[in-house]
Amino acid sequence: MIQLSNPRINKTFEALFALEDIREVFRQSLPTGLSSAEEQALKGKLAEIRKYLDEIEADGVGNGARQKYTGKIGSLDVRTREEEYINIHPIQAAGRLTPEARKAIIAYGDGYSTCDYCRKPFRLDKITKPGIQDFHGDLARWLNMDQARVVPGARRGFQAVASALVEKGDSVIVSALAHYTEFLAVEQAGGVVKEVPKNEQNLITADATAQKIEDVRRTTGKLPVLIMIDHFDYMFANEHDVYGIAKVAKQYGIPFLYNGAYTVGIAPVDGKKIGADFVVGSGHKSMASVAPSGVLATTDEFAAKVFRTTQMVGDVTNRKFGIKEVENMGCTLMGGTLLSMIASFPAVVKRSQPQNWEDEVRKSNYFLEQFRRVQGSNVLSEWPRKHTLTKVDTTGSYNKVAETHKRRGYFFNDELTAKGIIGEFAGATKTWKLNTYGLSWEKTKYLSEAFLDIARKYDLPIN
Amino acid sequence: MIQLSNPRINKTFEALFALEDIREVFRQSLPTGLSSAEEQALKGKLAEIRKYLDEIEADGVGNGARQKYTGKIGSLDVRTREEEYINIHPIQAAGRLTPEARKAIIAYGDGYSTCDYCRKPFRLDKITKPGIQDFHGDLARWLNMDQARVVPGARRGFQAVASALVEKGDSVIVSALAHYTEFLAVEQAGGVVKEVPKNEQNLITADATAQKIEDVRRTTGKLPVLIMIDHFDYMFANEHDVYGIAKVAKQYGIPFLYNGAYTVGIAPVDGKKIGADFVVGSGHKSMASVAPSGVLATTDEFAAKVFRTTQMVGDVTNRKFGIKEVENMGCTLMGGTLLSMIASFPAVVKRSQPQNWEDEVRKSNYFLEQFRRVQGSNVLSEWPRKHTLTKVDTTGSYNKVAETHKRRGYFFNDELTAKGIIGEFAGATKTWKLNTYGLSWEKTKYLSEAFLDIARKYDLPIN
Repeated sequence: MIQLSNPRINKTFEALFALEDIREVFRQSLPTGLSSAEEQALKGKLAEIRKYLDEIEADGVGNGARQKYTGKIGSLDVRTREEEYINIHPIQAAGRLTPEARKAIIAYGDGYSTCDYCRKPFRLDKITKPGIQDFHGDLARWLNMDQARVVPGARRGFQAVASALVEKGDSVIVSALAHYTEFLAVEQAGGVVKEVPKNEQNLITADATAQKIEDVRRTTGKLPVLIMIDHFDYMFANEHDVYGIAKVAKQYGIPFLYNGAYTVGIAPVDGKKIGADFVVGSGHKSMASVAPSGVLATTDEFAAKVFRTTQMVGDVTNRKFGIKEVENMGCTLMGGTLLSMIASFPAVVKRSQPQNWEDEVRKSNYFLEQFRRVQGSNVLSEWPRKHTLTKVDTTGSYNKVAETHKRRGYFFNDELTAKGIIGEFAGATKTWKLNTYGLSWEKTKYLSEAFLDIARKYDLPIN
Repeated sequence: MIQLSNPRINKTFEALFALEDIREVFRQSLPTGLSSAEEQALKGKLAEIRKYLDEIEADGVGNGARQKYTGKIGSLDVRTREEEYINIHPIQAAGRLTPEARKAIIAYGDGYSTCDYCRKPFRLDKITKPGIQDFHGDLARWLNMDQARVVPGARRGFQAVASALVEKGDSVIVSALAHYTEFLAVEQAGGVVKEVPKNEQNLITADATAQKIEDVRRTTGKLPVLIMIDHFDYMFANEHDVYGIAKVAKQYGIPFLYNGAYTVGIAPVDGKKIGADFVVGSGHKSMASVAPSGVLATTDEFAAKVFRTTQMVGDVTNRKFGIKEVENMGCTLMGGTLLSMIASFPAVVKRSQPQNWEDEVRKSNYFLEQFRRVQGSNVLSEWPRKHTLTKVDTTGSYNKVAETHKRRGYFFNDELTAKGIIGEFAGATKTWKLNTYGLSWEKTKYLSEAFLDIARKYDLPIN
């Protein structure tokens, strides 16, 4: 199936690209102004953009008449999914950029764009123009922790903590639903993961965690050195008892890392209230930021260890790079990634306030209630939903159609795409994941109706 | 001094931002098309953009008449330095984005934008749409190495290698001009740096490296486990004998990491010819890419170690994440950073061909010849230059003016800024660094003349 594309959207991209060409004319010109050849090039591009604008305006009459879009950036296709479709991809929803972030990376995309005013002591989080230092303070306060650093993805936060706390052979408690990056962080540090079993409801409890700690102590003769638990896991997005687990961690004196990859940036997170020693969040997963980005926040106590500065001294030169932090490899996000985080931050703070998050969860439940009306469509995640990411099972509904359809499971993808919906795992009609985060009520209702419509078309019974 | 700004450039940014607002209208709309309120919002933005375009066109007559620019992205100032000035910042020059990279991040800025078609085996470098897998192959071939991975900055490449090869207490040979991130990578792995002294010409030789290896063997009883040498160092950008050092490394059987942060992406780099076991490059420093980005390339032999896949098994679930690479923490650059690398790559390959790099070096030498005509202005880096980054000393020239000027060292900044030149370390008039990379001959000549003009204005003698 050739994907057709909305010409108005395509022309919006072409106009953006032509403006980048104009920008390039300025970049190549002397500070004294444009030459007449450059002026001609600019005028040509202005005319081109005006044409696009006219077409965008006129195309209103043909609203929705899609065409093939052959626009390219070099050999790259132009990605127009977010403009053209309702995207229910499980991990993309909360990483979509805000308009502010998109503007920020236009202005700050260049490599070391953060470093125009880097002065002593020469560290990213000390830069005041743009306000990177303030942003770090804001991040820590927002998470109610003492200190925060930006990192190239939540995984690099796990790595920094594991590397600082875990010695060879040490045990680290993770959940039976832990994300693979926690496994890797422990392995890279030389430790061994010990999983807390989930219960029949696919939940990780404080009791099970305490039990696991005891098991580890009994079998290895040593306490685990770190506990990392995902507040909402990547598989079901079930909510696990991080408050209770933090208490258990405290009782045993084991540092507790709160994995907020699926909360920080969309739901309220209060590190002190949770009782976390570390709070890790993902920029590209939940903070409307360019990848790879994220945040690692901690207490003053653990900052001394995890944010420790270099002690290495050159044996010949006696060089020291005193303020650079070992686990962060010095500066972390030196350009557009960080600026996207900063630009999205006000919107991210707002959207993760309780009432806004609760509304997102309400929309998730609304959609899934409609989704479950199709007989044989089930929700595998905890019910009612406390999150917008959900694992569903359509073995008894859409998969039945797939069994005899000539396009097999792809029929479902075809149907959804035709309705302007993407992001499900193409071809999968048994168990799969979706995320409704950030969809308006209008889109949520449209989405719900679309699933019912497909059921109707194939005569699946609806309750 | 209030920085004034070119209104045509400002309006180019405002038009880009207004187009992003249009994009947002599409993003918020239903797949069925715009509502009449959305259509109105779009029309309003189209009118706004047309106004900007008219102003850009009309402003040609007032070419160069600068005004205060109050444009903001939230609380962020808009960064217009690359459009308005000749930027000689030492580390920013080769990280400026190509137009293709700027377009790519417009289209691919959203968090997990690379993951639309992520299929089994679920690893970034295996994704074929967009062509990430091919890009990894291209990178390896281009550097003449067997395998390559993208990493969040050259430093994360050093970290991966050090972490894989260095055990607690091991010695690692670095140069007396090593970048601080090499120190950190070794420290993080538990090793100890051992510096090869530089000679009187501030060069690291193969003989000095061999001598240092012997010293380490004598004093510690063990050979170093890794040698990391910067082809061109960050301080002088002098060329060090990486070919000879690689031979020494081979003789001792010690792995050799070629630090190409100042070469990969601007100069020809042939890993096999060098004899490197690892080649590390920086995306945001030298490959016209968004930060943090970079490349780590290696041989099949060392890939087995540094790109080893996880062996960790969940003790409860028996989960394995077999294809994920431990030192890379699984996937690395999941969005705009990687797409900026891919989009810039054809231009980067072209610009780093011998004849193009030689021309860049020629421009560097041309400028510095003019620069040295001002008596008391000296070049501290090796001469003639083999690179575009240079450490200079103006203690005997512009600093003499600074001694009695009411603005002290900032007079120099004021003068350069007034001529449309930025990127020198503001206030510094003794020893400082500059980079002419990527300036056209026309700009190089303009830059040269500007330095002479400032000297003339303050009656500094010129040869």
